[in-house]
Amino acid sequence: MAHDACPGYSAEPYRTLCAEYPDAGVYPAVDFRVEWGPIFHRGRLDGTAQLLVIGQDPAAQESVARRILIGAAGHRVQGLLAKLGLTRSYVMINTYLYSVYGQSGGEKHSADADIAKYRHRWLDALLVGSHIRAVLTLGHLADEAWQRYRTTSTGKALQVAYQHVTHPTQPDSASKGSEVKRKELTAVMLQGWNAAIDALRRAITQPDVQVPVAHYGADFKPADLVEIPERDLPPGMPPWMRGSEGWATRTGTGAAKRRTITITIPK
Amino acid sequence: MAHDACPGYSAEPYRTLCAEYPDAGVYPAVDFRVEWGPIFHRGRLDGTAQLLVIGQDPAAQESVARRILIGAAGHRVQGLLAKLGLTRSYVMINTYLYSVYGQSGGEKHSADADIAKYRHRWLDALLVGSHIRAVLTLGHLADEAWQRYRTTSTGKALQVAYQHVTHPTQPDSASKGSEVKRKELTAVMLQGWNAAIDALRRAITQPDVQVPVAHYGADFKPADLVEIPERDLPPGMPPWMRGSEGWATRTGTGAAKRRTITITIPK
Repeated sequence: MAHDACPGYSAEPYRTLCAEYPDAGVYPAVDFRVEWGPIFHRGRLDGTAQLLVIGQDPAAQESVARRILIGAAGHRVQGLLAKLGLTRSYVMINTYLYSVYGQSGGEKHSADADIAKYRHRWLDALLVGSHIRAVLTLGHLADEAWQRYRTTSTGKALQVAYQHVTHPTQPDSASKGSEVKRKELTAVMLQGWNAAIDALRRAITQPDVQVPVAHYGADFKPADLVEIPERDLPPGMPPWMRGSEGWATRTGTGAAKRRTITITIPK
Repeated sequence: MAHDACPGYSAEPYRTLCAEYPDAGVYPAVDFRVEWGPIFHRGRLDGTAQLLVIGQDPAAQESVARRILIGAAGHRVQGLLAKLGLTRSYVMINTYLYSVYGQSGGEKHSADADIAKYRHRWLDALLVGSHIRAVLTLGHLADEAWQRYRTTSTGKALQVAYQHVTHPTQPDSASKGSEVKRKELTAVMLQGWNAAIDALRRAITQPDVQVPVAHYGADFKPADLVEIPERDLPPGMPPWMRGSEGWATRTGTGAAKRRTITITIPK
């Protein structure tokens, strides 16, 4: 059986963008895990994308698979795309190229000009003269990144629908272990996602597949989580990297933890 | 500063080769770590390679970086290439797409027709009508793979120089912890490598850089180990992945060990 895979960054302008990524001079190592390298995107770079998703920052699994939004948040987003009828015509980048370290790192650098400058080059590459009909941001940092891009000359000129939703794992982190709280926050979040679905379906009139309108209930159901497509990862990546079960964790403590990721293939 | 990177497999025939890799039906899971996915190559796929290196099978680090020969063996090979004046005009594949599991797995499957069939497609792609002047095999399994290819119609027709040397980490594994034995085996191995250098320099008359003849002494010196070039790894891979210090180990025991790789960034 033939396998599908992401062809990567060999075509321009992405080849040059990947050659010129900002390093610790722009992303301070005290607030970003620059030592794991930048992780650029997931999805179509060939001009076929109709939706651009902007996430926040890569996690441990993304540092290994070298594509963004493949973990818990990624499976939720993939489910949202399925409700829009998008099985391939999407592309995703993050607000930050590197994983945020510590609680406040992400907030602290939301207005950094040099971080934005490079992100704007990606946004220009993805959006100007493209088939993208709509932009979806996950979480307030991504929303801020988008609003900032909208003040640039190219950003101003764009005609795309825009929706901003709560980040897919915000209920999990904000509930701090309380299941009651997590359920509450998830229900509120999914109401927002339902509204976004309605708006995005109006903007994306020719999806990959025609699907009936389907909204979320009060919590995620198993069917709301969708596996990351094989075509989104580099060639030869094993299938469990695209599954919903976690497979990479930062192990150890303190400085050693920052330097360590343990990969365990799910049973 | 602009970063260089491997453009990957988006161009044919490599795109199709990466789509059609053999799975556990061809590589039995009892003898190969198929669960980590196939790892295809390292080096130039754009027709500029002058030397083809055939190694044995990928190790733990290669399962993460998704390119072959980047660990201890890779640094020794890179040093050998440097003595040929090759800084970029080379390409490497392995005898086996997957990491060998257990002592005898590699030997047991050296004559498997289906494993050879797919490897021959890569060899055809790399060699037929190419600029490759010479082939170097590392270890006896790679030599057998080459001899087998030489019996095919395309393999028979090729005019390339050929050298077979002892696998770069053979002295380490065969000495089983005895430093005296390791030194002995290394000295013998490097005599063979010196002979190969002389033969390969005659075949590769227009290397990337002109370098004076330099042979190995009785053991590897620090200068004999050369860092893996940035252009050989996918975009955004951190520099320590190309360094000579080990950074990935199979941790745990038994079945759990087979499912686990721990990445630790060197200090």
